[in-house]
Amino acid sequence: MTMNDEVRLGELRVGDRLYSGEEVEVTAEEIMAFARDYDPQPGHLSEETAQGTPFMSLAASGWHTAALTMRLLVGLGIAGSIGISVSLTWPTPTRPGDRLHIDGHVTSKRLSESRPDREILILEYETINQSGEIRQRTQAVVMTQG
Amino acid sequence: MTMNDEVRLGELRVGDRLYSGEEVEVTAEEIMAFARDYDPQPGHLSEETAQGTPFMSLAASGWHTAALTMRLLVGLGIAGSIGISVSLTWPTPTRPGDRLHIDGHVTSKRLSESRPDREILILEYETINQSGEIRQRTQAVVMTQG
Repeated sequence: MTMNDEVRLGELRVGDRLYSGEEVEVTAEEIMAFARDYDPQPGHLSEETAQGTPFMSLAASGWHTAALTMRLLVGLGIAGSIGISVSLTWPTPTRPGDRLHIDGHVTSKRLSESRPDREILILEYETINQSGEIRQRTQAVVMTQG
Repeated sequence: MTMNDEVRLGELRVGDRLYSGEEVEVTAEEIMAFARDYDPQPGHLSEETAQGTPFMSLAASGWHTAALTMRLLVGLGIAGSIGISVSLTWPTPTRPGDRLHIDGHVTSKRLSESRPDREILILEYETINQSGEIRQRTQAVVMTQG
């Protein structure tokens, strides 16, 4: 699939690419605002407080990266999905100035055992900045809405 | 551990409870604002658009529940942790009026193989509303900062 072609989740097939040409740019202000609301730890709250942490300088909360990744996924235009479960890793933290996109594939598709009118898909994608640094790896298990 | 006793992650032991007495209350306005920023899908954007979805009425983005869960976890006062990976499920969606808390345990603790000066802990906790409905189950793998 390509960006902005709205498709139903059930139309996707194993091997289909999940690629967002669209990039979201991350600012220090947005990183700090998200942290104040949801993850008020020193590494995320200010440049000054971050310097005393393993991050060494301001780094986005992993949950901020996860939320931005969802925005990019929604931008792919996949309609009719319900999130079941998700696994994330954060190889490196998102930094101010990052321009993020996602790239990945549909890796599994099967009928739901409990609801045979629904399909279960596994989507695997990475959140990557403009230098190719991987900020998040996601494996999402999603169900069609029938 | 109990709320507001700040402890280093490395001081936790297997079996220690992770319980937030503190509750965060979720409003429709906050659900819609988060959705506009990060997950602009009909079920999360307004009461009206949600009615045509499997959610039937306004439901928070799972990523919003995840972010609120992080706020509760930070409120436990566990210092010096770095998130490595996390797995989430959303048995039911967070709804307007939910007052959320978290409850769980430390389920594993071992030395890091790649960095023997660090420890790896597994934290498992649920995000629960005032009626006992489970909105999120989380398994988080975290590392001490050494």
